[in-house]
Amino acid sequence: MTAEATIARILAHPRFRDAVGVLAREHERIVADTIALTEIPAPPFAEERRAAAYLEMLRAHGLEEVEQDAIGNVMGRRRGSGNGSTVVVAAHLDTVFPAGTDTTVRREGNRLLAPGIGDDTRSLAVNLGFLRALDAAGIRTRADILVLGDVGEEGLGDLRGVRHFFTEGRHRHAVEAFFTVDSPEVDRIVTGGVGSKRYRVTFRAPGGHSYGAFGLVNPAYAMARAMLGLADLAAPRDPKTTHCASVLGGGTSVNAIPNAVWMEVDLRSADATELARLEREFLAGVEAAVAAENAARSTREGPVTVDCAVIGDRPAGHTPADAAIVRLATAAVASQGFSPTHEWSSTDANIPMSLGIPAIKIGSGGRGGRAHSLEEWIEVEPAECLRGMTASLATILAAAGMEE
Amino acid sequence: MTAEATIARILAHPRFRDAVGVLAREHERIVADTIALTEIPAPPFAEERRAAAYLEMLRAHGLEEVEQDAIGNVMGRRRGSGNGSTVVVAAHLDTVFPAGTDTTVRREGNRLLAPGIGDDTRSLAVNLGFLRALDAAGIRTRADILVLGDVGEEGLGDLRGVRHFFTEGRHRHAVEAFFTVDSPEVDRIVTGGVGSKRYRVTFRAPGGHSYGAFGLVNPAYAMARAMLGLADLAAPRDPKTTHCASVLGGGTSVNAIPNAVWMEVDLRSADATELARLEREFLAGVEAAVAAENAARSTREGPVTVDCAVIGDRPAGHTPADAAIVRLATAAVASQGFSPTHEWSSTDANIPMSLGIPAIKIGSGGRGGRAHSLEEWIEVEPAECLRGMTASLATILAAAGMEE
Repeated sequence: MTAEATIARILAHPRFRDAVGVLAREHERIVADTIALTEIPAPPFAEERRAAAYLEMLRAHGLEEVEQDAIGNVMGRRRGSGNGSTVVVAAHLDTVFPAGTDTTVRREGNRLLAPGIGDDTRSLAVNLGFLRALDAAGIRTRADILVLGDVGEEGLGDLRGVRHFFTEGRHRHAVEAFFTVDSPEVDRIVTGGVGSKRYRVTFRAPGGHSYGAFGLVNPAYAMARAMLGLADLAAPRDPKTTHCASVLGGGTSVNAIPNAVWMEVDLRSADATELARLEREFLAGVEAAVAAENAARSTREGPVTVDCAVIGDRPAGHTPADAAIVRLATAAVASQGFSPTHEWSSTDANIPMSLGIPAIKIGSGGRGGRAHSLEEWIEVEPAECLRGMTASLATILAAAGMEE
Repeated sequence: MTAEATIARILAHPRFRDAVGVLAREHERIVADTIALTEIPAPPFAEERRAAAYLEMLRAHGLEEVEQDAIGNVMGRRRGSGNGSTVVVAAHLDTVFPAGTDTTVRREGNRLLAPGIGDDTRSLAVNLGFLRALDAAGIRTRADILVLGDVGEEGLGDLRGVRHFFTEGRHRHAVEAFFTVDSPEVDRIVTGGVGSKRYRVTFRAPGGHSYGAFGLVNPAYAMARAMLGLADLAAPRDPKTTHCASVLGGGTSVNAIPNAVWMEVDLRSADATELARLEREFLAGVEAAVAAENAARSTREGPVTVDCAVIGDRPAGHTPADAAIVRLATAAVASQGFSPTHEWSSTDANIPMSLGIPAIKIGSGGRGGRAHSLEEWIEVEPAECLRGMTASLATILAAAGMEE
């Protein structure tokens, strides 16, 4: 059966129609849950309060084995009829916003404004809505559905929640498919995980008075050489590979040779081999830059030394276009009148993709914008939301094997 | 008459011997004034309280025309028998220490510890001691002696007090010699003023997402090229010329091409022509670096632009070894058993030197160390202080023409 046929059959099934009816009737309840969760701040590395609230919600929805793992993820299982093979439906608990950010939601008709509301708080609420719809409609699946609220998706969180889930979590060997429901839009299906490696590179030297100690090695010049070396590294268009010297600082006083300067560097590629090549060449370039500075000026007070600290490490990965979950998601999104595209991005799906586990990012329905800014918003026009949720729920059920 | 003979004649004069006797008897009073003035904080650009106190002290010492000028310098005149030709005896009011620094003086025998005590607060007190000694001994001079407490000698103060004095002050055309009494040591006579030009260079560009906007110009790479261009500029040993990229910063986030980065640069030379050459080449290098980055990557969202802001400008200058005040100071220092050297530095004397006015830095007597640190100290062993003060007072009197 083609993916289109599978999706069409699900959409036409009376129990699925019942489930969609529940989602339609519960529109305002999903909005209320979205608001309630958004107003529990979840800054990077401080998701505890929201995690505790979500854990209680998972429990209230009658899931089995509701628990919090060692890194802070919360999850619960909706058992299928199969042998425990598991489809994960995840949304991330954390936001990019630091502690102290006002996350009070402002509602203007169908528009809701608050930091983190679309990325990714609404998805947490929608996944609960999916559970209620499945239960109310009496839908059973072959695979277990594991609903996951994970920590550390954003920035320096570095995917630590899902990384833990797949490296140490007790469910990791049972996962046959992974969906991260992340942000409202459903048309942009993320099937490629851009890998990234991030470094903070610190160049140290003795420093000294700019006039009195003139002639000593200057760590800023070593860094400048390393930057220009990075700028010159090959960056193929396909697989798309990029590099960037992004944030920098250091030095003591205008009249002193600095004793330390640093830069942050972002290396990315859609391909893991390419990313490893880029990283290798970058690090070799840093060493060469340090050696060049130590050769160019005096090291009588000591040489330039360098420390390369990894501050981010997201593996690259890809779920092929002919993988079942990609075909099913594409068919489901198209069935609801959207124009699906396959995109590359960096999401929780990077981790399972890098392990060869079928994984994609789907949407929570509706529209949104200005993510990662204080003006973040979502639009919850009921019919538009319902079309999006229908597409995502049909995709999940197709992957989990909805029973007739 | 040789400088040595002039100094010997002054040292042997009964009235000078009387003056030295006053300095000896008033040792503790000078120490007390040093402590009192040190404990009135005088941070950069906030010398008002100390200036007001010093103004009152100048008035109490019976000077004429005691006043504060528009920039904050305080001064008063001890009239000579001549036509108003003036010898300036200056010390700077400001310290490098920010507001809030504890300047309470700790005394351990002859050792006094406090931020700013040696650089340059003791000199303010010693200059008052000189006035009392001259008055008590009935010494007259040909030239007027103008005692000056000036602002803005340190750091970003950029010599603004003495610069104002020589560019707009009402005495500027009458000065025939300028002494800055700066720090205790008398053996190191500063006869050369190292010039410096300091820039804060800001490179701006549109910036953008490190992955999505890859290929756009990166202002950090323009800055890196400018740094390496600076590192390669000629820096002769004689006249000693130096350059340094010292403090830098910028960027928004590890995953963003920066939209602004900046660096501070210190350019110095003992020679004004050489400094001007260095500055010209540096600025040309910055322009070339920006052009190279705009040629190397895409400017479709906008090019890298650059702003070079002057944050420091101290003119170079030199009082020749055969100038009278250099020969007199050298002879006076040697006469007290020290080994005089002629040094280059950056002091208040830079300004008159750059104008061709005879100017040197002399000492307040005693020893000191750890200037510009919170552990700054001076040693006020009475005999050592007296030898130093005797050398400096004899120099001043020789320059001002002590009447027989």
